[in-house]
Amino acid sequence: MKYLHTMVRVTDLDESLDFYCNKLGLVELRRHESSGGRFTLVYLAAPGDEDAQVELTWNWDPEEYTGGRNFGHLAYAVDDIYALCQQLQDAGVVINRPPRDGHMAFVLSPDGISIELLQKGDSLPAQEPWASMESVGSW
Amino acid sequence: MKYLHTMVRVTDLDESLDFYCNKLGLVELRRHESSGGRFTLVYLAAPGDEDAQVELTWNWDPEEYTGGRNFGHLAYAVDDIYALCQQLQDAGVVINRPPRDGHMAFVLSPDGISIELLQKGDSLPAQEPWASMESVGSW
Repeated sequence: MKYLHTMVRVTDLDESLDFYCNKLGLVELRRHESSGGRFTLVYLAAPGDEDAQVELTWNWDPEEYTGGRNFGHLAYAVDDIYALCQQLQDAGVVINRPPRDGHMAFVLSPDGISIELLQKGDSLPAQEPWASMESVGSW
Repeated sequence: MKYLHTMVRVTDLDESLDFYCNKLGLVELRRHESSGGRFTLVYLAAPGDEDAQVELTWNWDPEEYTGGRNFGHLAYAVDDIYALCQQLQDAGVVINRPPRDGHMAFVLSPDGISIELLQKGDSLPAQEPWASMESVGSW
């Protein structure tokens, strides 16, 4: 038995690819379009970590996606949590839970999928502006 | 950057461990209890696939968890989709989408997390009782 992917639905594929790839740093591995089913599936993974994928499902007929409480989040270990959060913030992503402790941060995808970022190895030393940054919203 | 886990919330930890471990076949890797935070985290993975985990979050103060549409499912490749579905059914799990095609099945966790099972490699030849079994509910 082997983990393949976590599937999340997206409202706007371009906006989602911009978030997951351009901003967060995942890469597109492959995609499957079904004109009969009127959907597109896009498989993403962290570079070099292709065995653990996220499957984006984009249904061509618009649907508004909201979150439930049974699903929590996707989590990724990152090399430099401050650098990634800066990059995300510069790209317009709200850092809902800033990495005040040099260890953990949360952001949301365009469809409200909560994404946890965890510093690899030991936490980084506390650093401004993060150390005194308030949390925003829920994640 | 490296995928760590998908977190899902559970209402009843014993019932969830019975589902994810005894019935589905994942193994518990470690757990963390926080008496201050009043929660327990349990990390699970398919045997031999410990890098891709599911984190169960059990909040000790009861909360009813329902699903949203932005999260879709967790997917696992399995060695014999008929054998696993039989094992699940014998254990009382509803096979919402039976593996009619010898390729794909869906079941739900006790908290309504949709779990996709995919036959490794080529689909198996169609086989009763699965081939003519109706789908049940939504997943």
